[in-house]
Amino acid sequence: MEEEHRRPLILISNDDGINSPGLFALASLLRTIGEVIVVAPDREQSAVGHSLTMNTPLRVTPFRRNGEVFGFAVNGTPADCVKIALTALLKRTPDIVISGINHGQNTAINILYSGTVSASTEGMLFGIKSIAFSVCSHNWDLDMSSSAYYAALITKKALSMEFPRDTFLNVNIPAIPQSEIKGIKLTNVGNGYWKDFYDKRRDPFNREYYWFSGEYYESVNDIANDDIAVREKFVSITPIKYSLTNKAAFDFFNSFEQE
Amino acid sequence: MEEEHRRPLILISNDDGINSPGLFALASLLRTIGEVIVVAPDREQSAVGHSLTMNTPLRVTPFRRNGEVFGFAVNGTPADCVKIALTALLKRTPDIVISGINHGQNTAINILYSGTVSASTEGMLFGIKSIAFSVCSHNWDLDMSSSAYYAALITKKALSMEFPRDTFLNVNIPAIPQSEIKGIKLTNVGNGYWKDFYDKRRDPFNREYYWFSGEYYESVNDIANDDIAVREKFVSITPIKYSLTNKAAFDFFNSFEQE
Repeated sequence: MEEEHRRPLILISNDDGINSPGLFALASLLRTIGEVIVVAPDREQSAVGHSLTMNTPLRVTPFRRNGEVFGFAVNGTPADCVKIALTALLKRTPDIVISGINHGQNTAINILYSGTVSASTEGMLFGIKSIAFSVCSHNWDLDMSSSAYYAALITKKALSMEFPRDTFLNVNIPAIPQSEIKGIKLTNVGNGYWKDFYDKRRDPFNREYYWFSGEYYESVNDIANDDIAVREKFVSITPIKYSLTNKAAFDFFNSFEQE
Repeated sequence: MEEEHRRPLILISNDDGINSPGLFALASLLRTIGEVIVVAPDREQSAVGHSLTMNTPLRVTPFRRNGEVFGFAVNGTPADCVKIALTALLKRTPDIVISGINHGQNTAINILYSGTVSASTEGMLFGIKSIAFSVCSHNWDLDMSSSAYYAALITKKALSMEFPRDTFLNVNIPAIPQSEIKGIKLTNVGNGYWKDFYDKRRDPFNREYYWFSGEYYESVNDIANDDIAVREKFVSITPIKYSLTNKAAFDFFNSFEQE
């Protein structure tokens, strides 16, 4: 009986870094429903994709807020944080791995580059249910109460069920007050993409350098797509599974085979 | 008619860095079948996943071998290299994007962390046929003639055909002489995985640090899996497509929906 009433253990990481307001809002609210351990990068790690730190040592440092230990900062990536938490820092396996709340949406093609999503991928690979949360704004001064509310709601529900072992959830929340949110929708990863360009500039020593930029093109205008759903004021939940083999293309490529 | 006889333009990148023997062997051989442009990281970028450099400027520097310009070094990731080559450096769109030859196999779960594969992903996202090549050894002194032979064979064949627009090839080559290779097989991304651990150590100042390590567990013992095929001395070719939405799980998660 005691086991049934145990408070759930919630591991939280992110890619904006341990001092991000989104992480703070989420951790604060989730502390009302479980025991929360924060293990997050010591600085911003956006667009790191699914990177691992293999060639340098990792350090784990207690991070304080208002004199209290809020969590542990790691000089690595989101994937590093989840791996080191699960294999070296935590005394028991968490009930759920949460990533976020990321400042900036992770929909469509952005999922491939997202450190936020990679933390949830790691949780899933360890066999733990995992959710990535992002709010659709890069503004660090945004009022996080609406997105934290939905993140806590979805986390609570997830804690009460099992997930398929190969699947995690990628959640995107519009950056609007709770009263304006129209609902919660299951969505697909859309086909939106970036048109990249590099700004060619000269530094003060007259040497050339390039700065990456791009323009985003939305997915097909169907509310079943993640980026369209959030644009239309729905919280978007996408079940993510890495099916990478294109079995349907085997016939196409079979002339490559040799025996 | 002139267009038909134009030599193909081949863009090569990698994640081991521009001075890697695998890249050199591949570029040298591919120069016999086309015009080759090398744009590669200026240093090793292994396990960077699909990272992008967004917060710092990129520099592009000619890299010389024996007094000749061999290619262009970029202070970034494999994905950066392909993006900057395609949008800022090349005057025409290449016929194919090649990544590698990576020193170390990129099969099963390793695909998620692979910078080599991310370069091919970028090529595919730009709508260009793309192939990632890896040889199953981390030895930089390995005789690359066998793997370069197969990489050139597969590249030549790929140049003569169209690819499905959403698919690229991930090729792994056993680190054995050509005479011992048993053939070429189309394979699946296997379910092999790493059991991670972190070695906890103390630095000369008695401060704790962690070093990442792990033990690899092979995929199910079926030659249809990429890691098993290379173990069994076949060149493995896997058609990769990013199908990330788990549509089959929508029923499972539909209680999350709210309107």
